[in-house]
Amino acid sequence: MEDLVIKGGTLFTMNGSIIENGTVSIEKGVITFVGKEMKEKAHNVINAKGCAVLPGLINAHTHLPMTLLRGYARDLPYMEWAQKIRTAEAKLAPVDVLAGARLGALEMIRSGTTSFADMYIYMDEVAKAVEETGLRAGLGYGMIEGLNEDSLTKLKNREEFVRKWEGAAQGRITTMYAPHSTESCSKEFLIKVRELAEKNGSRIHIHVLETEDELNLMKKRYGMCSINLLDNINMLGPNVLAAHCIWLSDGDIGILKNKEVNVVHCPSSNMALGAGVARVPEMLEKGINVALGTDGAASGGSLDMWKEMRVTSLLHKSKDPRTMPALKVLEMATVNGARAMGINAGMLKAGCLADIIIVDLEKPKFISCDLISSLVNGASGCDVRTTIVNGKVLMEDHKIIGIDEEKIIKDARKATTGIIC
Amino acid sequence: MEDLVIKGGTLFTMNGSIIENGTVSIEKGVITFVGKEMKEKAHNVINAKGCAVLPGLINAHTHLPMTLLRGYARDLPYMEWAQKIRTAEAKLAPVDVLAGARLGALEMIRSGTTSFADMYIYMDEVAKAVEETGLRAGLGYGMIEGLNEDSLTKLKNREEFVRKWEGAAQGRITTMYAPHSTESCSKEFLIKVRELAEKNGSRIHIHVLETEDELNLMKKRYGMCSINLLDNINMLGPNVLAAHCIWLSDGDIGILKNKEVNVVHCPSSNMALGAGVARVPEMLEKGINVALGTDGAASGGSLDMWKEMRVTSLLHKSKDPRTMPALKVLEMATVNGARAMGINAGMLKAGCLADIIIVDLEKPKFISCDLISSLVNGASGCDVRTTIVNGKVLMEDHKIIGIDEEKIIKDARKATTGIIC
Repeated sequence: MEDLVIKGGTLFTMNGSIIENGTVSIEKGVITFVGKEMKEKAHNVINAKGCAVLPGLINAHTHLPMTLLRGYARDLPYMEWAQKIRTAEAKLAPVDVLAGARLGALEMIRSGTTSFADMYIYMDEVAKAVEETGLRAGLGYGMIEGLNEDSLTKLKNREEFVRKWEGAAQGRITTMYAPHSTESCSKEFLIKVRELAEKNGSRIHIHVLETEDELNLMKKRYGMCSINLLDNINMLGPNVLAAHCIWLSDGDIGILKNKEVNVVHCPSSNMALGAGVARVPEMLEKGINVALGTDGAASGGSLDMWKEMRVTSLLHKSKDPRTMPALKVLEMATVNGARAMGINAGMLKAGCLADIIIVDLEKPKFISCDLISSLVNGASGCDVRTTIVNGKVLMEDHKIIGIDEEKIIKDARKATTGIIC
Repeated sequence: MEDLVIKGGTLFTMNGSIIENGTVSIEKGVITFVGKEMKEKAHNVINAKGCAVLPGLINAHTHLPMTLLRGYARDLPYMEWAQKIRTAEAKLAPVDVLAGARLGALEMIRSGTTSFADMYIYMDEVAKAVEETGLRAGLGYGMIEGLNEDSLTKLKNREEFVRKWEGAAQGRITTMYAPHSTESCSKEFLIKVRELAEKNGSRIHIHVLETEDELNLMKKRYGMCSINLLDNINMLGPNVLAAHCIWLSDGDIGILKNKEVNVVHCPSSNMALGAGVARVPEMLEKGINVALGTDGAASGGSLDMWKEMRVTSLLHKSKDPRTMPALKVLEMATVNGARAMGINAGMLKAGCLADIIIVDLEKPKFISCDLISSLVNGASGCDVRTTIVNGKVLMEDHKIIGIDEEKIIKDARKATTGIIC
């Protein structure tokens, strides 16, 4: 008998088909069946009539505990924003990071995100929040060379983090190495990070060419841009999540393609900070895997991947309306995100991880001759009624299950006071 | 005794203050009190504890029945989009327009829009939908010269529309003259429209310089742009709603300022169609009243003014992050919209029309040190729990009152079939 069956919904499989009145069966955290056949013998049956059933959304670049700093350092360009944020971050204690991570996790569950790739400080706290809340995550302990520890201690501690958390939380946690950027880590340090990642078979999560300042600094420092530097030290490969990738030359795009690097596009944050516009339609056309991320809530303002999808669509259409049809944008937030994170998810397909969301379609805004475009344009996090990760229902009919939401909100409010409010 | 009292909420008055645990009293469709004092003797008391109470949002440029064409003609630049849409519109019967208007009205009520400025065909049907659903609207029967009727008949019929509907629906309907654009109406025709508007004391609602093609055509046809032409025939004044205003010279901005024209910014639609970016921060700085609109759902994809606010903020910040702080964007969707439409609304203030919305703040995404920016960045239509127009509750706790939502959705689906699906 299956653990869970979702029946009666419209399945957006992201695997080439839309199935009306379809069934999804789940056993031991994995999807066992997707199709028309009725399977009603299960420990738990969810009726999804009038709803869309989709793979859970994947936020491939964020800084979860930064949710605590939302609304702070607003209305500032990147450099001033970063200074103000780093001053606030220096005041954060592990308990604050935990409060922020829990708050962000709640926002994700409520808006239909099931997996995320994170990079921050005190990452043990983020791992704890993932363990508790039931989400899936790829966690990288951020590294800014020279900050807090000397380089060798830092690398040792980061390897310790990987050893401690890889595969934890019933396999929901994977670990990554997360050097902040080529700007804040030296070439020598990055080489050591690459060696560690090779040794542990880990992914690498790094900011790349987010600002023109970074491009100019790299040219001055190395006579080449960040992509060329990373390529020179053999760091680029299909295990790399390169966030932003805005200030790219044609040659850089060629390198990203050849090395099968995963690019993570974060348009809300990029727009809010005036960082520039990534050449996403070109990258997608060249076959680069471009995923989507909200970045931290202190820049993009929201962890809602539906908002991120709408902004992605509009931003690139503003240059060419023929680009970025809704399906492609939805792929970025599902299939491409899963590929970037190296998880078998992002699709409703037998064998995939059972990370699934259910969205209520019986609303005026979804009456449309093209459901996918009405979802990408019209849906918001609060349209997600049910969120399932690893086969476990984390939210059903908008009700969070097994987590004390009120306490998390209260603790986050308390943590904020004194730091930024 | 008051008809309605809203108590316990955080009042965003849009009149210079945020009042915690405040009270709003309403009598005969008008706000009679806003402040801290408790007034609990009313026929109806709404408890807004944990909620934001705001003036209803004002959508100052839309085409309500186009909601029926949502998702059609997607992924196309303006000219091809317009051709495809006009072919579909030629198939619409009054009954379809009514179905689309009702559907759009529901979406507005659900997302917290209380007033809108509309321009379309078969506007009697839109007026009926406004009457039925309880919304407030400024309605203009669209005029494309040479389409369907000869010019004199058209003008006569439009004057008839104004006579019939001005002040209808307990004063919730005002009427406007709505020549489509300088592109589709000749100078001579526009002069006659201006004379009619003067005679009837009406507002004029018109598309202005939405595309570069319009600019080029006007220069070729008249040796001047649309703004100069409209100024030459004395059409510009504080009674004009000029939608889009993208392709403006510095001189045009000066004219809009001097003539006190209301500009309506529609960024989602402009981005989706690749129409260009209006110089909104400059216009606001010069003191021009810039309101916000979603345009029709067939271009922007959504009638949700929260989405429009977020996109407005991000679009202009992408050029300069210091511009468009959240409060200014919220003003565009409230105070500025009311001024554009010529209604005494857009603020919580004694004497103002009782058009009010209540937004649930007890959600993780609203934990922030700046509530207004977390609303503009994080809120969506579905966070609106209660919508009040003219003192009447149209939606309470997400439940639409006195309207058969299911039937409206069913009728809209039926109308769509055969036209576009």
